[in-house]
Amino acid sequence: MEWQTPYYAVIFSSRKQAAAVEDYEAMAAEMVALAAEQQGYLGHESYRNADGDGITVSYWQTEEDIRAWKNHTRHLLAQQKGRRDWYEHYTVRVARVERTYTGGVF
Amino acid sequence: MEWQTPYYAVIFSSRKQAAAVEDYEAMAAEMVALAAEQQGYLGHESYRNADGDGITVSYWQTEEDIRAWKNHTRHLLAQQKGRRDWYEHYTVRVARVERTYTGGVF
Repeated sequence: MEWQTPYYAVIFSSRKQAAAVEDYEAMAAEMVALAAEQQGYLGHESYRNADGDGITVSYWQTEEDIRAWKNHTRHLLAQQKGRRDWYEHYTVRVARVERTYTGGVF
Repeated sequence: MEWQTPYYAVIFSSRKQAAAVEDYEAMAAEMVALAAEQQGYLGHESYRNADGDGITVSYWQTEEDIRAWKNHTRHLLAQQKGRRDWYEHYTVRVARVERTYTGGVF
């Protein structure tokens, strides 16, 4: 996947709480689907290891798109639950992608 | 981990070749250790799933630091082997981290 620079990346790094949280998976899936419908959404990648550490990077056309998604009503609820119930800690980084290189066969 | 913005992120997304490659793990570990010794290195996060898709995000103080690491002799060899032997495809994105938010207990 390649998009014209500059565009934006939101790097969300987190550690999930050890206790199983039943509504996490459903909400996470909903957020992925909902984000994909938003203005300016380009794509995302998401990983989590067995220790509970994970990263999700989403890509957006503009900072305005990121702000709108951050303030989406349903996403605000997910953020609130995330802070309260799901994550031990998290870091969100908003970054402007300046240049890209690719190789291999996609 | 929090560093003063602006700083830079190198987002390296890749799919590993399915065939086992014996020297990959050793070289990957060496690159992690070597990167940590370089000027301007701040930190990194790395994940790969069972399908062979992975992401490594490294954080650097300046673009100059990224260029120097990209051109490090040993790292150039690793990049060459990566293109030839290890990855089906990869994307490198160089991004300027504009702002960060954190929550929870680190």
